[in-house]
Amino acid sequence: MSVHTTIGSVSESELLARIIPMFGESPFASVGVLVPPGDDAAVLTTGGSVVVTTDSMVRGRDWRDDWSSGHDVGVKVVAQNVADVAAMGAVPTGLLVSVAADPETDLDWVIDLTRGIADAAEDAAAPVVGGDLSSAPAGTVLVAVTAFGDLEGRAPVLRSGARPGDVVAVSGSLGWSGAGLALYESGTPDPIGHGADGAHLGSLELATSLLMWFHRSPRPPWEAGPVAAGAGATSMIDLSDGLVRDGGRIATASGVELVLDESAMREHFLTGPVELVLGGDAGWRQVLSGGEEHSLLATFAPGSVPDDARAPWTVIGVVAQAGPEGPRLTVGGAVPSVTGWDHFAG
Amino acid sequence: MSVHTTIGSVSESELLARIIPMFGESPFASVGVLVPPGDDAAVLTTGGSVVVTTDSMVRGRDWRDDWSSGHDVGVKVVAQNVADVAAMGAVPTGLLVSVAADPETDLDWVIDLTRGIADAAEDAAAPVVGGDLSSAPAGTVLVAVTAFGDLEGRAPVLRSGARPGDVVAVSGSLGWSGAGLALYESGTPDPIGHGADGAHLGSLELATSLLMWFHRSPRPPWEAGPVAAGAGATSMIDLSDGLVRDGGRIATASGVELVLDESAMREHFLTGPVELVLGGDAGWRQVLSGGEEHSLLATFAPGSVPDDARAPWTVIGVVAQAGPEGPRLTVGGAVPSVTGWDHFAG
Repeated sequence: MSVHTTIGSVSESELLARIIPMFGESPFASVGVLVPPGDDAAVLTTGGSVVVTTDSMVRGRDWRDDWSSGHDVGVKVVAQNVADVAAMGAVPTGLLVSVAADPETDLDWVIDLTRGIADAAEDAAAPVVGGDLSSAPAGTVLVAVTAFGDLEGRAPVLRSGARPGDVVAVSGSLGWSGAGLALYESGTPDPIGHGADGAHLGSLELATSLLMWFHRSPRPPWEAGPVAAGAGATSMIDLSDGLVRDGGRIATASGVELVLDESAMREHFLTGPVELVLGGDAGWRQVLSGGEEHSLLATFAPGSVPDDARAPWTVIGVVAQAGPEGPRLTVGGAVPSVTGWDHFAG
Repeated sequence: MSVHTTIGSVSESELLARIIPMFGESPFASVGVLVPPGDDAAVLTTGGSVVVTTDSMVRGRDWRDDWSSGHDVGVKVVAQNVADVAAMGAVPTGLLVSVAADPETDLDWVIDLTRGIADAAEDAAAPVVGGDLSSAPAGTVLVAVTAFGDLEGRAPVLRSGARPGDVVAVSGSLGWSGAGLALYESGTPDPIGHGADGAHLGSLELATSLLMWFHRSPRPPWEAGPVAAGAGATSMIDLSDGLVRDGGRIATASGVELVLDESAMREHFLTGPVELVLGGDAGWRQVLSGGEEHSLLATFAPGSVPDDARAPWTVIGVVAQAGPEGPRLTVGGAVPSVTGWDHFAG
């Protein structure tokens, strides 16, 4: 029998005393953290520069408690930020975590969130070096993460460097998170939820669970960012708003056309769990426009796409000079009709 | 006649197109910002380390719209973060801003907030290099800032370095923000609000308005942090939770007793607007425990308190060995009965 303790029923210092040790002692002994949490600010060692980015998740907008656990939310908010660091070509070096929560929030949920943040931080080798805790209006829970990265002496990889003649490549999946969201929205139960262990499930059920899991707590291919930068990637972006929208951002920033190969994309990204679960038509729409995937899209000079088993890149097209229509992205010769996300529009 | 446009009625890209230019172009051309807003992450040049901190403000908890304007909130959230950077002995070098807001939030309020952030960022010479915008549940507005700082080759000044024989000093005011809050809570109208220009006001009205202004939009003495570090400060802290509570943190972290001189404190910090407006008893309580002042408390070896007109420091006590009672802070030989803030307790 569990007793529900709210965070408002314990003092701030008690709450911090529960949370801070969960981020571990050992990371702060590693190179990179000169001053760990507990002072006015943290201090990280750097090369000649530091990559900085921030991204937040809000309950009811970016997650639903009936779909995602606190642990899921913690993993996802770290993943989003680490993907942005990786998309500059940097390795993650540290995180700040800011939580604003209704005092009625269940303490166990906050502990679970903390565990998810700590697990993802450890996976990314990016210690949590500080943060902030504040109370919020009834019903509101917001988790904001700031991530830091080190370019290890490389130049940052911008969105604006794609050049005609480059090839276009993706690291990671396409459409999994969007497919998982579509499954949740259609009321599909997770075949491996609620204590089932998956041992007797068929491939459809396993693929369904995989997509739903990826939507809740994605694991972006962040190792591929520094690898791409080391191979001389000319442009790179984190796919947070869908391939078409984010690829269009590279096209616009670089003043080029991204000419994507429909059959290569279908073969590499539609075939598999997305097509198995959603079918070809709905699956293809997710490949093109599903959000929150956090895979990486990059361009490379011909012949320089990295061949690294830890961080594989798949070529899906080429960069061409912008035509009379101006910078754009085409798939199979046409501008896709689908688009991506807008955080304020419906 | 003004038409109220909500942020939810314009697209995210339109909103960003309004906001981003307010942070100016010129700061990004300055040394320190290699990659400005608009890519996956920003890149700042650094020395061998970077100071990082984050602090948030939530509507209804950290400000009230009937007391504070959007501009006030923007100034205050930047000030809080810059004070934390200064308290490590660093100069601010950049900011990330994250806003989560109910789509029904008035666009003009967000523009006013942005202007406040931009003004304080310019004052601190810390450009806004990126951020995040998300929608939040009805009624919620949250502004989170992450600040970066450069130690310019100095060691960070921690809370744990105070040594017996050091002197204790303050830069900035004490009790002004707490006094201003007490005035708001008592329903006192701001004598210079609502179009009055203050030209015909007496000293009581001017002092009242000054304290209320300082509560809404403090201007911490952030230049004093690097000056103190350069003079060899042995410990330092940002006074966000009141002198007694934050001074106690230095005592605990350093394992010492801070022995504060009541008459020096009354002379330098009670005399003036706080005593004039609140009287001696209530004013003294604010000097001891008023929160959100963001002045700096530091310890120095005897004879090394900096003498710098830009960033004056006032000696208020000495550091002694901890007695049988353990690390603590005393004022006039006694432990003050007042304490500071707890963000979750009432």
